[in-house]
Amino acid sequence: MAVAENKLSYELIAEWIKKNPGASVCSPEGADEFKNIAAFQDFHGLPEFRDAVAKIMKKVRGGKVNFDPDRIVMAGGVRGAMEMVMFCLADPGDAFLVPSPWYPGFDRFLKWRTGVQLFPVVCESSNNFQVTREALEEAYDNARKANIKVKGLVITNPSNPLGTTVDRDTLRTLVSFINDKQIHFLCDEVYAATVFRSPEFVSVSEIIEEVECDRNLIHLLYGLAKDLGLSGFRVGIVYSYNDKVMNLCRKMSTACLVSSQTQYFIASMLCDDEFIDKFLSESAARLKRRHGAFIKGLEKAGIKCLESNGAVYCWMDLRHLLKEPTFEAETRLWKTILNIFKLNVLPGSTFHCTEPGWFRISFASMDDETLQVALRRIQILGGVNLNGYA
Amino acid sequence: MAVAENKLSYELIAEWIKKNPGASVCSPEGADEFKNIAAFQDFHGLPEFRDAVAKIMKKVRGGKVNFDPDRIVMAGGVRGAMEMVMFCLADPGDAFLVPSPWYPGFDRFLKWRTGVQLFPVVCESSNNFQVTREALEEAYDNARKANIKVKGLVITNPSNPLGTTVDRDTLRTLVSFINDKQIHFLCDEVYAATVFRSPEFVSVSEIIEEVECDRNLIHLLYGLAKDLGLSGFRVGIVYSYNDKVMNLCRKMSTACLVSSQTQYFIASMLCDDEFIDKFLSESAARLKRRHGAFIKGLEKAGIKCLESNGAVYCWMDLRHLLKEPTFEAETRLWKTILNIFKLNVLPGSTFHCTEPGWFRISFASMDDETLQVALRRIQILGGVNLNGYA
Repeated sequence: MAVAENKLSYELIAEWIKKNPGASVCSPEGADEFKNIAAFQDFHGLPEFRDAVAKIMKKVRGGKVNFDPDRIVMAGGVRGAMEMVMFCLADPGDAFLVPSPWYPGFDRFLKWRTGVQLFPVVCESSNNFQVTREALEEAYDNARKANIKVKGLVITNPSNPLGTTVDRDTLRTLVSFINDKQIHFLCDEVYAATVFRSPEFVSVSEIIEEVECDRNLIHLLYGLAKDLGLSGFRVGIVYSYNDKVMNLCRKMSTACLVSSQTQYFIASMLCDDEFIDKFLSESAARLKRRHGAFIKGLEKAGIKCLESNGAVYCWMDLRHLLKEPTFEAETRLWKTILNIFKLNVLPGSTFHCTEPGWFRISFASMDDETLQVALRRIQILGGVNLNGYA
Repeated sequence: MAVAENKLSYELIAEWIKKNPGASVCSPEGADEFKNIAAFQDFHGLPEFRDAVAKIMKKVRGGKVNFDPDRIVMAGGVRGAMEMVMFCLADPGDAFLVPSPWYPGFDRFLKWRTGVQLFPVVCESSNNFQVTREALEEAYDNARKANIKVKGLVITNPSNPLGTTVDRDTLRTLVSFINDKQIHFLCDEVYAATVFRSPEFVSVSEIIEEVECDRNLIHLLYGLAKDLGLSGFRVGIVYSYNDKVMNLCRKMSTACLVSSQTQYFIASMLCDDEFIDKFLSESAARLKRRHGAFIKGLEKAGIKCLESNGAVYCWMDLRHLLKEPTFEAETRLWKTILNIFKLNVLPGSTFHCTEPGWFRISFASMDDETLQVALRRIQILGGVNLNGYA
């Protein structure tokens, strides 16, 4: 239950493949195209792949904004994509602000090879972990006081680990903040279509059409790992509104391109509008049902979660199970859940959460039967006096 | 004729695909496996993929050395693979020695993001561009005198652009040199099976079984872009004998993994020993025929090449067509060849060659008809008094 996957709709794609045997150059029906695809490709990507990606990027944002296929830069997954943007924007030692709690992968692939630092914007449960202008200003000032150059702000929307979307007003606040400070804004929107309840998802690409801002500061990240569940296929996208960043990323991307076999398949599948529309709505419906069942099961155990509408996580409030409000107690509880209840959930400290007692649980990575086993264990957990353990 | 591709044997793979419809998870026959492959994969790679890669790495080295599947680290192409090793071994400003002429891609993906410098080991036509101990020592001393820390030596074997393999004695010299200096040795062996005439290819992995050396200094790079012609599929491999480097690369590789769709297909195909054996021998036979026809065509034009046995290049000696032995004259000749004769070959200066007048021409990237057109143009080039142009 720690894995960031959406496994609820794979058979829809498998069915599509059975009806579209020529969609792969490695199938008998597609093999005549093999020679054209296996060879060295234009580092810009197959034109049909970039067209298809631009199209789905528009689709998952409710058709409200257009994306130019010529600005699509590919990378082997969103990790490689974000790292490229970091290399473009920052020198070693420079910092990016990140609202807490944040996805801990950032601590690895944004920092390791670039030498960049991440600096927290503290968000708290008192306002449902929303980012405020005050928190942004405080983080910015703290960094400046520590003589650290702030180059930008990074968010994931919908949020990993919170499972919430960033609302329109908050997005406007963020855009206005980065524009005032003239720092860059990286928006990881890899869960754009993984939203199953209102409020609906709003992309930064909409906001910059509504408010004044220097578009050279805006860099969007996307991929197909979450919305289509294709984590293994390593399709990451940089969509930067900044020409220099786009051109630099394109050069760098030769070290992490998407397999042309995968580009071809993705292009074939994404072209089928009827299928993609059906897939996205069915996937959202399944996520909604699963999320509902999950929340209900947790409630039976007396466990509340932050109200959420997207991604594949519940952000569980287990503060009442801690003996004392410390991260040591959180770690003890985590070990108890792992070793006694055999549930692999992730403690908030993993995500740099500043309040002990929150845990991320992934709800779409298992089948219905496993879900029931997990919920039964959680219900026992909720009913036991844990003071001896945690 | 500037493209580094082997397009001579694609239809053999296309035929195999037609006979093996379940080799892809994106074909109707393979779609039942889709859900298991499309999901998040172990960052170490599919076990069957690593087994298959270890097997072909042994096969293309004449079965003389074994490779441990657990040491196989994948990357999106050899570019990403080499860059990862650089990140492990060097700090910005550190240098790696590279025998000239060298593949100019190194100037981009080895240097750009790592901040590493490349320092030439000068090789000359007088001894067929072979690397000598003296040249190595000189380069090393020059770097040291310039206060540059030398961290290692990089070679491609077979060589791009020379088209020659490094002989056993030279390899021993190189291993002994790096061991004496305690610097690292990166061997890009991406053309290991692209050898079509004697002398046969010798891998550094053989040499280190014959001579004393610190294996922690040895790092092998491989990929399927050349030997199988799958440039688009982005399969790069780091095989380091150094545990630390292996483990660090594995962590870094999450930013440039091989698509699991591609891993699955490659694993299926490489498992078919009978096919792979037939493919490799037929591919070598085709390369040999093509190379022979090419050399013969060039000889008719009075053009000699460095004697070669591997990769997909001829290293043409056009010194007699230069008005004067300068790189300015080489550039003028290159422009003439490009603009008047409409042939896209690459001048030696691109490869940091220290003697003007050498050009790399790629002989396996076109069909027979295009080859004939190219040879006719080259024959006219050879027969014309070019003093007016070059």
